[in-house]
Amino acid sequence: MRLLTLARDLRRRKARERQQLFVAEGLRTVEELLDAKLAVHGVLGTPELTRSPRGAALLAAVHTRGIPYLEVSDAEFASAADTETPQGVLAVAPVPARTLEQLTLGAAARVLVLDAVQDPGNVGTILRTAAALGVAGTVALPGTVDLWNAKVVRSAMGSLFRHHALACPAEALVAWLHAHHTPLWGADMHGDPVPATGAPDRLALAVGNEGAGLTAPVRAAAARLVSIPIASTVESLNVAVATGILLHQLRP
Amino acid sequence: MRLLTLARDLRRRKARERQQLFVAEGLRTVEELLDAKLAVHGVLGTPELTRSPRGAALLAAVHTRGIPYLEVSDAEFASAADTETPQGVLAVAPVPARTLEQLTLGAAARVLVLDAVQDPGNVGTILRTAAALGVAGTVALPGTVDLWNAKVVRSAMGSLFRHHALACPAEALVAWLHAHHTPLWGADMHGDPVPATGAPDRLALAVGNEGAGLTAPVRAAAARLVSIPIASTVESLNVAVATGILLHQLRP
Repeated sequence: MRLLTLARDLRRRKARERQQLFVAEGLRTVEELLDAKLAVHGVLGTPELTRSPRGAALLAAVHTRGIPYLEVSDAEFASAADTETPQGVLAVAPVPARTLEQLTLGAAARVLVLDAVQDPGNVGTILRTAAALGVAGTVALPGTVDLWNAKVVRSAMGSLFRHHALACPAEALVAWLHAHHTPLWGADMHGDPVPATGAPDRLALAVGNEGAGLTAPVRAAAARLVSIPIASTVESLNVAVATGILLHQLRP
Repeated sequence: MRLLTLARDLRRRKARERQQLFVAEGLRTVEELLDAKLAVHGVLGTPELTRSPRGAALLAAVHTRGIPYLEVSDAEFASAADTETPQGVLAVAPVPARTLEQLTLGAAARVLVLDAVQDPGNVGTILRTAAALGVAGTVALPGTVDLWNAKVVRSAMGSLFRHHALACPAEALVAWLHAHHTPLWGADMHGDPVPATGAPDRLALAVGNEGAGLTAPVRAAAARLVSIPIASTVESLNVAVATGILLHQLRP
């Protein structure tokens, strides 16, 4: 399939899942993709790209790596772009083949579980946070936005290319956690205040949907529910902020 | 000025500053504004609004409070709206007159300082976080996005209506902190790892611009720079996530 048509097609989750390809859009995201040494299927750019030193350097790296490059008009680019004001460059790349089994946990380790978290900006920010705070891997359960959605990819600022993030069903995760002696805690506004010390050496933390919280299966599988105490005048914290506070507080 | 014209005009910061009015857009934001018992200048809605029970309840509250209401067409509403898919209701309200002098600090208290934080979504999320974590007040220094920008108001999810947030120059803040025996700490990626205990009873924490960090005057005024240790593969945390982690870690 022609690269432009392919990039347009990949805006749909079904197409990404069928083709196992995703789109990384914008200068910084494409730079991070190249830095991460992942395979790249092709790069699409506008004539504008060569006019900035940063764009020219990126193009040089694309050529050095022997990655197919296609120049298109601004209008054609916009037809494939996810952003409102595109920066004139996007890459199409294979979704890294990652499994739970590849995830090796040290004696003290953290796993993050996304239980139907729906906003792509939140999920991207959470992946960036998990990678920064040394989480071993992040598992997206059904109901969570596709990890390879263009906005998630962009908001993760490269973390998705290095951090072991993958999607799997809840039953597979629960079985894997059990086999790896890793208890699951869930974030819930009615849970116990998150303890300052005494968390298990290995721990998985599940955070839930922006409105509805954790799903019933995850709630049932959780050994403990924990919360961040907040003022009664505020309904909740943003899920990315709450995840950051909990991961930091529960760090090994 | 007619309400529709006024709402359109208030999309500009200069107009908001001159008129000392702001726009709260969307069902939830207008509900929070009414709940907060702030003065409301007027409400603008589309015919759609009365068709949902939630919209009808909101309109009833508007009428009970004797707030001027104007029904406009979808196209007229869109011309004043800040969102791409408007919910058909917005309110125009006076910017609450808040000063540093009104801010009373307990024996143990936290003040948050925004030092040229520019993204309105980040600032809204930070205000929501500060209110949730019991911060006494938030001070926006020059270079920070206008606190009464429509997207800040929306992202703050009502916190801006209750939390003592205001803008002031750096010199005024530094003098006030000094008079109130409140040391200033700054968040900086090269600072000391943030301590788990031993923070002063009264403390102001400054967080800086998404790209450039703290400004020189704030850096100079800070008694201490603190950081959140992160993995070397990640450039930084999102500023709202970092603020949440620091405020939680440094809570009195």
